[in-house]
Amino acid sequence: MNHMNQTKQTQKQTQTEPKRVNPGLEGVVVADTRLGGVRGAEGFYHYGPHNAAVLAETRSFEEVWYLFAHGELPSPAELASFRSATAQLRALSPDVERAIAALGPIESMPPMTAARSVLGVVGASLGIDSWIDDPVPAGRRAIELTAAFPSVVAGLWRVRNGHPIVEPDPSLGFAADYLSMITGARPNPDQVAALERYLILTIDHGFNASTFTSRVVASTGADLCGAAVGGLAALSGPLHGGAPSHVLEMFDDVGEVSNAAAWVENALATGRRIMGFGHRVYRADDPRAALLRRTTREMGSRHADLALEMEPIVLDALDRHRPDRELRTNVEYYAATVLDAVGLPRQLFTPTFAVSRIVGWMAHVCEQVEANRLIRPKSHYVGQPPC
Amino acid sequence: MNHMNQTKQTQKQTQTEPKRVNPGLEGVVVADTRLGGVRGAEGFYHYGPHNAAVLAETRSFEEVWYLFAHGELPSPAELASFRSATAQLRALSPDVERAIAALGPIESMPPMTAARSVLGVVGASLGIDSWIDDPVPAGRRAIELTAAFPSVVAGLWRVRNGHPIVEPDPSLGFAADYLSMITGARPNPDQVAALERYLILTIDHGFNASTFTSRVVASTGADLCGAAVGGLAALSGPLHGGAPSHVLEMFDDVGEVSNAAAWVENALATGRRIMGFGHRVYRADDPRAALLRRTTREMGSRHADLALEMEPIVLDALDRHRPDRELRTNVEYYAATVLDAVGLPRQLFTPTFAVSRIVGWMAHVCEQVEANRLIRPKSHYVGQPPC
Repeated sequence: MNHMNQTKQTQKQTQTEPKRVNPGLEGVVVADTRLGGVRGAEGFYHYGPHNAAVLAETRSFEEVWYLFAHGELPSPAELASFRSATAQLRALSPDVERAIAALGPIESMPPMTAARSVLGVVGASLGIDSWIDDPVPAGRRAIELTAAFPSVVAGLWRVRNGHPIVEPDPSLGFAADYLSMITGARPNPDQVAALERYLILTIDHGFNASTFTSRVVASTGADLCGAAVGGLAALSGPLHGGAPSHVLEMFDDVGEVSNAAAWVENALATGRRIMGFGHRVYRADDPRAALLRRTTREMGSRHADLALEMEPIVLDALDRHRPDRELRTNVEYYAATVLDAVGLPRQLFTPTFAVSRIVGWMAHVCEQVEANRLIRPKSHYVGQPPC
Repeated sequence: MNHMNQTKQTQKQTQTEPKRVNPGLEGVVVADTRLGGVRGAEGFYHYGPHNAAVLAETRSFEEVWYLFAHGELPSPAELASFRSATAQLRALSPDVERAIAALGPIESMPPMTAARSVLGVVGASLGIDSWIDDPVPAGRRAIELTAAFPSVVAGLWRVRNGHPIVEPDPSLGFAADYLSMITGARPNPDQVAALERYLILTIDHGFNASTFTSRVVASTGADLCGAAVGGLAALSGPLHGGAPSHVLEMFDDVGEVSNAAAWVENALATGRRIMGFGHRVYRADDPRAALLRRTTREMGSRHADLALEMEPIVLDALDRHRPDRELRTNVEYYAATVLDAVGLPRQLFTPTFAVSRIVGWMAHVCEQVEANRLIRPKSHYVGQPPC
């Protein structure tokens, strides 16, 4: 019943009007989670009990996806069965392919917007419903949507560029097939390994804004597709996931290492954005940046040398100009060089982030619905008193 | 710069890990607002300084929309100009009409899902961008999206049912044109007046889950279309806006007033939902239910008598079976009878709720971006300790 969760006690609580406004919800704990955590002071984050950076170096994407879906790493047999089952779920229905054909060519539509629009059709094709009414369990819906999402992103990209859609190849792993559906070519193993590392590193990261959005949406009883769409909308914002392509634009603008110092001083003097630095949680090095820095060094790319040499110049300048802040390189800085080296166009950087983060969103939503409570904070009216 | 908002002080705050978990964010104040407030104990809510129920009885939808967009009620000249400018913005671009033609016929796609997918195309057609980068002010975007949204809902409905899209008629008011685009006929003035009353009553209501979702999405710098899509996803949940059609299903199931008492006892005994009762905020009568009850009495409709006679039976039974709760009739109960009397199909009840609530979402988003802070609460890890 709609009113099952409402006790008099709760209703009384909401009558008191505390005046302290917390616009960023800093320090407010909304959920207990078994999925992972971030220790900003230590520069450490974990998925379940596992160091996330170690998982990224030692495991496949499917193994870590399984960890989020089932709460523990798979046995070899479980992994084989998960790989094969999820690979089958990559195929798109005729309705979804028609939606891609209709929306893909709209040039003014950013790939993130197109992807979330088409994801609604994926949900419809699956017959997804409010998790309250859906006979298919949320955990299964989570896997279905996650498996299909890379095919949506890739299909839209192909159509946008006038190429035919590349059907998924279930013999390929998740990361390799994503690259292959985008480029139409077999990716080389180094590219696949680097992409897989990036994808694992970015699955989850505390209660970031998109994860929180997915949980708020799910708390209303909305279907899991709606929760994912909320996450996609939040992730598209440049203060969250929508900025990695801007890092490349910055490198383009700087051009050469010899210009870097002057460029940075000028940016700081004129209040221009320096992309890829600062994070609300980390005071120590962001472990994601550390691993992607190493990957950048190993792989090289058009901007690899510039990125590596420019980083200390920026940090030094920030330290002099913003001594009140402890600013570190964040995940976006080297995500840009790695995704570029992998052969992904910059327009797909944020959608690729979503390809991994949707695993985190879906696991959080499954946790939310296990013990749901509608998320409904308060606002404080400060206008003219009502007459 | 990405790191502009991050001071050491804030970063330190986030290092402390308070253990008190507040899963519904009850009593947590996220924002100061000038848009309105809800006084649950008094059964009163207001838009700016104006009693919302009085506005619904005395004003047109456009006047109240103007209040949300501009912070005060319009002069007659301002209203005339606002009416005519917003009426022009109802027209859909060819891309949007093509998207409606492509997605409308997908029978498995709920109207709310289709509407949010097509709204992305509206945003693309308008060239909408992150509010941080968009040269068009957020306030203008808010009006553009609000004006176009009813045409999207109506267009999808027409195509779904095999009818041609009805072009908007700028000579009609907002509510009348919405009805006319759905039915293809000139609505009668009583229906328009009742719909307008419903729409005004449901524009805003504190920090409900969809409004909060829109603000969280906007806090990442996402475009206003993304914020609206997040709101739509949250509103689709049956614990929020996705339930009014279930009220009619309940009336269908009860059938006649003489069955009501037995039906209610049976529902309570078997844990079945009784739709339309209970609200987290109101302890007194929900003023929206009160006004829509009166409208139901005035208009009549297939279920009007049943609804009016069944209400005290349900309240009495709830009082006996759930004496620990103070459950009142909520807005959904009589929203169902009014929207039914207006001639709207039940599949469009929640989308129609969105047609008004988008005004609230957009006003909240505009307030959010005026003094933005990324909304990022915390979770508390309770799994096995990381190795």
